Amino acid sequence: MVPTYKSDGVPKATIARMGMYLRCLTYLEQQGTVTISSRELADMTGVTGEQVRRDLSSFGRFGKRGSGYDAKRLKTEIETIFGRGAERWTCCIVGVGSLGTALLASRTIQKWGFKYVAAFDTDPDKVGTRVEHVPVYPLSDLKTIVRREGIAIGAITTPGPSARGIARMLWEAGIRGILNFSPQSIKAPEKIPVLSVDLSQEFLKLSFYIQSAEQRAREEQAEIIAASHAD
Amino acid sequence: MVPTYKSDGVPKATIARMGMYLRCLTYLEQQGTVTISSRELADMTGVTGEQVRRDLSSFGRFGKRGSGYDAKRLKTEIETIFGRGAERWTCCIVGVGSLGTALLASRTIQKWGFKYVAAFDTDPDKVGTRVEHVPVYPLSDLKTIVRREGIAIGAITTPGPSARGIARMLWEAGIRGILNFSPQSIKAPEKIPVLSVDLSQEFLKLSFYIQSAEQRAREEQAEIIAASHAD
Repeated sequence: MVPTYKSDGVPKATIARMGMYLRCLTYLEQQGTVTISSRELADMTGVTGEQVRRDLSSFGRFGKRGSGYDAKRLKTEIETIFGRGAERWTCCIVGVGSLGTALLASRTIQKWGFKYVAAFDTDPDKVGTRVEHVPVYPLSDLKTIVRREGIAIGAITTPGPSARGIARMLWEAGIRGILNFSPQSIKAPEKIPVLSVDLSQEFLKLSFYIQSAEQRAREEQAEIIAASHAD
Repeated sequence: MVPTYKSDGVPKATIARMGMYLRCLTYLEQQGTVTISSRELADMTGVTGEQVRRDLSSFGRFGKRGSGYDAKRLKTEIETIFGRGAERWTCCIVGVGSLGTALLASRTIQKWGFKYVAAFDTDPDKVGTRVEHVPVYPLSDLKTIVRREGIAIGAITTPGPSARGIARMLWEAGIRGILNFSPQSIKAPEKIPVLSVDLSQEFLKLSFYIQSAEQRAREEQAEIIAASHAD
């Protein structure tokens, strides 16, 4: 039996951090780590220990045992929360450009239990080929193939204004969730989650961190100068 | 004079949301919107109105005026926080594979004021060419060119175990911040922010949202059946 977790109303930021913990725990498992404290998990992920404990307790399942968590068990439980323990997620990519190809080539995505079964494109030079061993079909076959293969996740990596039409084709064919890498915003029926990913946001965030770090450095420098003058 | 904002100790999740607000405000500007309420901004970004007000007030600058914010001014102020008003950020890509090419091709990244001035690769077939109008140099020239061009941001898109060595070359050449798209974790000197981006996490998050949505749907279905039996 697959255990169920309290999942309703968990904030998106918590889910993002759970993903980070899972990544760390996978790394630690490879290193042979047996027990891990919330403090160590916090240090590795750049959050506070208190935050780690709160995140894990929000799922109501992870008892801390003395000096720390059983790393292997914690990993398995987080995997179950993400649905990996329960099933293998079939995926398709719509738009076999550079980003689509990058996703098809990602070993990490496949390691987490996601399996690409089809890719779609309108380019006749791409249709009929295989990209990273995944067959590329014409966009006009999308509904038939998504339905036939029972594909769970569709990732839209087209650049243009076609994303909304593609999303509609995906949900009409019974897709269970959509990853939207296009610049268009997509509204799907409520029962079909859409996660929009915008890589430009990472550049924006980094530019902010740089400004913060440099301002902090300038302030520290000014304090050092002030202190040396006070001598 | 460039206004300075209270930026120290702002949580990462706040920064991520500020990026979403900026994206929405850019869209609204194109639509001709003049005033926006925190409620509308919340609806567009999927957070609560209270959260929007808290985020904006954490920078201590945005006064709400009667029925809402001045959309144009709010956008300009968030841009300044992200450092766009102050300068144009020069960037380089290390690793011209499919992901590197996708970043070079992104119009959105360039729209936010980031300018690619160089790309680096070890592949002799790529070196000397231009990808999306950006010259590709041999990796061995990285330090010279980053220093000469005063490049601010380096994005590492190599798949393998070389990311740490590349990060070291970047900061030794005076880079101000690193975007790490490789699966390796990178520790840089404290004054150089590193932002790691793992696209597989988006698949994990979506799989979680799907499970939550489907569980909620099942529960609602069960309630409907129970209610119909009670009649």
